[in-house]
Amino acid sequence: MTEVLERHQDVYPTRVSEGFSAIPRQDPVVWGNATDGPFDASTLDGFDRRGYLMEPDLVTPAEVQSFREELERLSQDPAVRADERTVIEKETQEVRSIFEVHTVSDVFARIANDPRVVNRARQILGSDVYIHQSRVNFKPGFGGGDFYWHSDFETWHAEDGMPRMRAVSMSISLTDNDTFNGPLMIMPGSHRTYVSCEGETPEDNYQSSLVMQGAGTPDEESLEKFADAHGIDVLTGDAGSAIMFDCNCMHGSNGNITPFPRSNVFLVFNSVENACTEPFAAPKPRPSFVGARDFTPAG
Amino acid sequence: MTEVLERHQDVYPTRVSEGFSAIPRQDPVVWGNATDGPFDASTLDGFDRRGYLMEPDLVTPAEVQSFREELERLSQDPAVRADERTVIEKETQEVRSIFEVHTVSDVFARIANDPRVVNRARQILGSDVYIHQSRVNFKPGFGGGDFYWHSDFETWHAEDGMPRMRAVSMSISLTDNDTFNGPLMIMPGSHRTYVSCEGETPEDNYQSSLVMQGAGTPDEESLEKFADAHGIDVLTGDAGSAIMFDCNCMHGSNGNITPFPRSNVFLVFNSVENACTEPFAAPKPRPSFVGARDFTPAG
Repeated sequence: MTEVLERHQDVYPTRVSEGFSAIPRQDPVVWGNATDGPFDASTLDGFDRRGYLMEPDLVTPAEVQSFREELERLSQDPAVRADERTVIEKETQEVRSIFEVHTVSDVFARIANDPRVVNRARQILGSDVYIHQSRVNFKPGFGGGDFYWHSDFETWHAEDGMPRMRAVSMSISLTDNDTFNGPLMIMPGSHRTYVSCEGETPEDNYQSSLVMQGAGTPDEESLEKFADAHGIDVLTGDAGSAIMFDCNCMHGSNGNITPFPRSNVFLVFNSVENACTEPFAAPKPRPSFVGARDFTPAG
Repeated sequence: MTEVLERHQDVYPTRVSEGFSAIPRQDPVVWGNATDGPFDASTLDGFDRRGYLMEPDLVTPAEVQSFREELERLSQDPAVRADERTVIEKETQEVRSIFEVHTVSDVFARIANDPRVVNRARQILGSDVYIHQSRVNFKPGFGGGDFYWHSDFETWHAEDGMPRMRAVSMSISLTDNDTFNGPLMIMPGSHRTYVSCEGETPEDNYQSSLVMQGAGTPDEESLEKFADAHGIDVLTGDAGSAIMFDCNCMHGSNGNITPFPRSNVFLVFNSVENACTEPFAAPKPRPSFVGARDFTPAG
């Protein structure tokens, strides 16, 4: 029945010419139950309200060390550097991101399929999950750029064909994230409202939007209303901690002039019951290393 | 004797071609005594160690309101907008800063000479003080830029001819400064070391350096050492609060993608016993609205 409705009516329209609009979320935030574990009822309740949760020690210091070494190794590997899934900064020739890193590296494949990770995603999404996107990020200090406010779901819906809000991101910190080195900022509670964005999606929008948001950027009026209503939470944590946040959280990060870089492993899980279809507002899906077309369950 | 020595030997050389170097501070940080008031001994001790202090409620909410209204009025005044002392952003045509604001506006002249302000500067500097620089700043949200690490004294010494470290800045917040909207960051304790910078001062360096630091920018190696040794303090506070910081603090601020702008009144006091001479590393002094040549005591 839902399937039939969706084909006739997009409940989350976006990239339309008529301007911006706010649409109430049509989907649950938490799909599973406390009895499923590992999260207890109050943690799930917090996630439901704020749209995110934090795990102070998801992985051990030894694991953090091994991830950093693997990231360093990958950054030096000529084959990885030449791969289209690797983003290299023109000016410094440094590796900024490696996409689909769970297929590039055994080390990152293991953590992406680790029960500590997958079972948390499964519980929130109430089903088996698959990896919609994975990457490692290296953000330098001394002037690393900002990332403007956006909802990931808006992009995944418009450009990857993700039907409903039933996906969750996990960011595992490989460095300490303090208030001063450009940590993730989330407007708590913003995940309950969908901001439909203006403008059509240009061809191959992903190539610019991986660096900076173009189409899919919310308007300032909506952001002001959101910030006044919800406030802004600054998500700090030590290396080894993890943040999980709902696909429709309004989030962003400021730049970083400090000497302290930031790096993380970023994993997006989508419910296998919410597998991507054709894009809702783009001529064709983005490449599969940015938005997976293989829906094999993780774990 | 000091006078004679200074003419023969610059104790704080900078903008030299031989590269960067760290020179221990040759001057006291606190020149006055606790018995002078208004600061008690422990507050002065904290300033001595960290290089800054915070006053949660220096001015009243009604004063903040009147300052904001005056800033708004000045921003609309065609004569002020046309004045060379006013910095206008090209893209948006909005006023970003008004220099020498204590001569432009009666409202700001009063606060710059107010005993709450001047007596604090007098006590730290242990003498009468004059206004070396004053300005109001308006920093927008939604992507307001960063300000890279620097020591003010390096510039004032090189380009304004300030002989020794005996000046203090006061920033009075007209908006709430949170961790997320680009607050002032200081490396506590950095004021005890002078970082000599590389390169000659270009003609009219001030025109670009008011917006972004060029000559007078510390090297990344020094900044890394400083950050590791001292850490970074993020100075947040409500509207009406004030920060006082030593002239040689290493400080900067990140950009601001949040919708919340920041504005402040910025006052630099120098000891009348430390009046500016010829620049130590520039062909001629900067204009007097940036570095005063009138040493009449404030208050």
